[in-house]
Amino acid sequence: MAEDVTRPDQPARAGERILLIDERGKRYYERLRVGGQFSSNRGVIVHDDLIGRHTGRQVFTHRHEGFLLLRPTFYDELLTLERESAIIYPKDIGLILLKLDIAHGDHVIEAGSGSGALTCALARAVAPTGCVHSFDMRSDMLAVARRNLERLALTDHAQLEQRDITAGFGLDGVGALFLDVREPWRYMYQVREALVYGGRFGALLPTTNQVSQLLAALPEAELGCAEVIETMLRELKPLPGRLRPEDTMVGHTGYLIFARKIDYGCSPQGEAAPSSP
Amino acid sequence: MAEDVTRPDQPARAGERILLIDERGKRYYERLRVGGQFSSNRGVIVHDDLIGRHTGRQVFTHRHEGFLLLRPTFYDELLTLERESAIIYPKDIGLILLKLDIAHGDHVIEAGSGSGALTCALARAVAPTGCVHSFDMRSDMLAVARRNLERLALTDHAQLEQRDITAGFGLDGVGALFLDVREPWRYMYQVREALVYGGRFGALLPTTNQVSQLLAALPEAELGCAEVIETMLRELKPLPGRLRPEDTMVGHTGYLIFARKIDYGCSPQGEAAPSSP
Amino acid sequence: MAEDVTRPDQPARAGERILLIDERGKRYYERLRVGGQFSSNRGVIVHDDLIGRHTGRQVFTHRHEGFLLLRPTFYDELLTLERESAIIYPKDIGLILLKLDIAHGDHVIEAGSGSGALTCALARAVAPTGCVHSFDMRSDMLAVARRNLERLALTDHAQLEQRDITAGFGLDGVGALFLDVREPWRYMYQVREALVYGGRFGALLPTTNQVSQLLAALPEAELGCAEVIETMLRELKPLPGRLRPEDTMVGHTGYLIFARKIDYGCSPQGEAAPSSP
Amino acid sequence: MAEDVTRPDQPARAGERILLIDERGKRYYERLRVGGQFSSNRGVIVHDDLIGRHTGRQVFTHRHEGFLLLRPTFYDELLTLERESAIIYPKDIGLILLKLDIAHGDHVIEAGSGSGALTCALARAVAPTGCVHSFDMRSDMLAVARRNLERLALTDHAQLEQRDITAGFGLDGVGALFLDVREPWRYMYQVREALVYGGRFGALLPTTNQVSQLLAALPEAELGCAEVIETMLRELKPLPGRLRPEDTMVGHTGYLIFARKIDYGCSPQGEAAPSSP
Repeated sequence: MAEDVTRPDQPARAGERILLIDERGKRYYERLRVGGQFSSNRGVIVHDDLIGRHTGRQVFTHRHEGFLLLRPTFYDELLTLERESAIIYPKDIGLILLKLDIAHGDHVIEAGSGSGALTCALARAVAPTGCVHSFDMRSDMLAVARRNLERLALTDHAQLEQRDITAGFGLDGVGALFLDVREPWRYMYQVREALVYGGRFGALLPTTNQVSQLLAALPEAELGCAEVIETMLRELKPLPGRLRPEDTMVGHTGYLIFARKIDYGCSPQGEAAPSSP
Repeated sequence: MAEDVTRPDQPARAGERILLIDERGKRYYERLRVGGQFSSNRGVIVHDDLIGRHTGRQVFTHRHEGFLLLRPTFYDELLTLERESAIIYPKDIGLILLKLDIAHGDHVIEAGSGSGALTCALARAVAPTGCVHSFDMRSDMLAVARRNLERLALTDHAQLEQRDITAGFGLDGVGALFLDVREPWRYMYQVREALVYGGRFGALLPTTNQVSQLLAALPEAELGCAEVIETMLRELKPLPGRLRPEDTMVGHTGYLIFARKIDYGCSPQGEAAPSSP
Repeated sequence: MAEDVTRPDQPARAGERILLIDERGKRYYERLRVGGQFSSNRGVIVHDDLIGRHTGRQVFTHRHEGFLLLRPTFYDELLTLERESAIIYPKDIGLILLKLDIAHGDHVIEAGSGSGALTCALARAVAPTGCVHSFDMRSDMLAVARRNLERLALTDHAQLEQRDITAGFGLDGVGALFLDVREPWRYMYQVREALVYGGRFGALLPTTNQVSQLLAALPEAELGCAEVIETMLRELKPLPGRLRPEDTMVGHTGYLIFARKIDYGCSPQGEAAPSSP
Repeated sequence: MAEDVTRPDQPARAGERILLIDERGKRYYERLRVGGQFSSNRGVIVHDDLIGRHTGRQVFTHRHEGFLLLRPTFYDELLTLERESAIIYPKDIGLILLKLDIAHGDHVIEAGSGSGALTCALARAVAPTGCVHSFDMRSDMLAVARRNLERLALTDHAQLEQRDITAGFGLDGVGALFLDVREPWRYMYQVREALVYGGRFGALLPTTNQVSQLLAALPEAELGCAEVIETMLRELKPLPGRLRPEDTMVGHTGYLIFARKIDYGCSPQGEAAPSSP
């Protein structure tokens, strides 16, 4: 995905992760290795038959049951990351990347790393020349995040660090910063130190009480222009003659809070006073 | 935004677009030019006072009324593009980029260009080395899209071409393709020619009737694994003591359809037959 | 519920349905009978201990585990009706009653009866003097609907009839009519015969294709002023310090279509021509 | 509506409210009176031409422009009540009636009366023999509510009283009670006095902060089994060939809180102790 060598026109290679989908739509993710084999209740496929094959094809088990062979998209991978904690959903990640205004070459701070879903998305968006600086207090979470970055070949674009961010981020002049922690309002001073004026701040919180508490604390970090957003994603059954929404949907993942760091301190009489027009 | 020289730590430059927000939250977008001036009913700010200033600050009119000076994010810009047609909303763009699996270095096809909102988002995501190939039949729409790409300094990452795509896209082996046209089902043969096996297809359609018609036609383009998705974005008033959703919300922008090109033709007896496990 | 004798200030009686809720919120519905007993993995409660007790109290099993003793509301009952088919959800029923403008004393037609959830709601709303005329082709469905009406003591306000409505409803001059059948567009002539001018028509359909087909057929029944509505109900976890929407929600039950019968045939030159003002 | 004499099979009478809809769907509500006339930019209709006419017909202005003549439904009326305050939306009213388990013959308490929208809906549901006891501190609001009840001929089923409910409701043993006040948590003692055990409690609140505060206070009124619900209503354009949701929708009206009064005080050792099974 992030590597040109695995873009769609390349045959599947040993070491690459692939996606197999059976006739009922059930999905299986495999990392191909010489001598490996995929087993399901529909039969067996040896990996050596897949290595060197172009994807986007049907392949068959020894029982002649068909599977679709595909490269997983980044979206697919996000849904199947190893996780030790709740992960940020792709529906929210798309909006976070846009609202934090992430582009290639950027440096961005994230805390906590959690299972690394957002870390991976940020790393992919700042590649090839930018960097995600991701912090977590827990070494076990960092290990999960690292394995997920490795799986997606994104380690070059992220720096993971075990750190209690009450001591600050150890960085300043950063253009974008995201907090996915339980009590983000405790780190307003640290956010203020790290973020450049005009910088973009984001946070994800599950409860309305936390949202209220964070909104009240934003001024401590000189954060203004606050927004609170929920995204809802509704899937429809893709049947041309019986088109209808799915019976159940995700009702809630979290509230997204966005803001920008602004120096409100300049007075009309001070440095910022206008010339006469 | 897409240029390092205008990342947040740089002072505002002549020629750059900036965002001014008044105390009620009303937003004004300006391109700074030497000798220019910004006028509102709260007073005047001369551009020369803004050029060379760091953003993320308050600035004042000759009447001492405060405005926030910010660099617009890409999200802000998307909402304020010049438009001759309905534009694709940012809430949908975030999902489109993820589901089409767009990364830097990619080549992607889009038709029609429309006002170029998605063109800009795709161009930004494939930069610095990839390219968006965007087609439209109408020269006036292409002119709008070109001006929007220029505004965002993204012209290096997009090729606009006036073309009736019933004659095909003139490209093949492409990994991702998006149709924002009224009758996408008319171009299934052309999509099939352009897209590589395993490639990602997307479309946006406003009505359920169109969704049904496209779903029925997808097999003509060898498109499978179809999904239909609606995104809903709900904003809350950012008041810590009176947190509540906004009274009105966008009820509908369109249905997103995603699919992947798959060669279903291989039979268990043919080339794709498995070795014995 | 519909009977004064079981309104909240009466003690629980033999023959009455009651609701028991354990400490985790799990709900059990029982019909009280002399000599009966309620058993769960938390212990046993003999019905004779409940008969004569006031509801809205805690009661205890022989193991001293507490249960709440409540009279089920009509809403509770709707969710626990015996069902042989998909039932209409309470969230939709509230809107149907309002849009069909049902009040005590009304006569209203419904087809098919299905499991009788809407039949019960209509019967309750037209009581004590009105009547629901409910039709179904299948005797097994009518038997289910009848048992549900009996359970809720609503049989006096509903007439169930086995009938193929292609032969018409056998009624005319009716003010409100609801179709919960797979192909409502097949009965437009019959609807026209039954409904008075100005009468309210409603239907529930799961797919967008059906909605389109019904909308196209409405003029055959002289139905105008059409509306199509979806209701979505979102539940929040009732935790004062951690208020947040539930993780999952019902994504779709059906589209509601409402219309009114209107005589468009009168021409300005005809009987309806105005006097000079 | 609530009167049999104005059910759909009756011609329009002097004194009755009717609804006129022009060809673009614009709605006009009129009370018919002998000698009155309806004027719009499409021409004039004299009321005497409408009195005695059956509804559900087209009528014409002196310029031969067509209008639909209809009896407004109760739903229509709710949307056009005289209002001095935010009214409760019909989408919420349908659910409130069901969750409070209102049926004909019931006695129910409401405070405050506000503009009387819910008062009207409750009055209609308890008719012909029940009563709504509605309280408000402000005489101007009560006057509005009274006029709205009169408009809908529902005054026989409601008692309006000016009262500061900090002094209690002056009633007890009531089965259902609804609070539409800014600080419902201030009246928990009074609710407890008025409501019977097992009784149904409801409230409507616009902000999450209020919901949290009320949830925390519910135990003071012996209220348990709390639920918090949002309803969302999404309208679609009723075009068979171009079916799609409306562009905008109501994003928020309020959160509905429901609970039931429960005596948790009985201990396993006390009066409620079980017999041996």
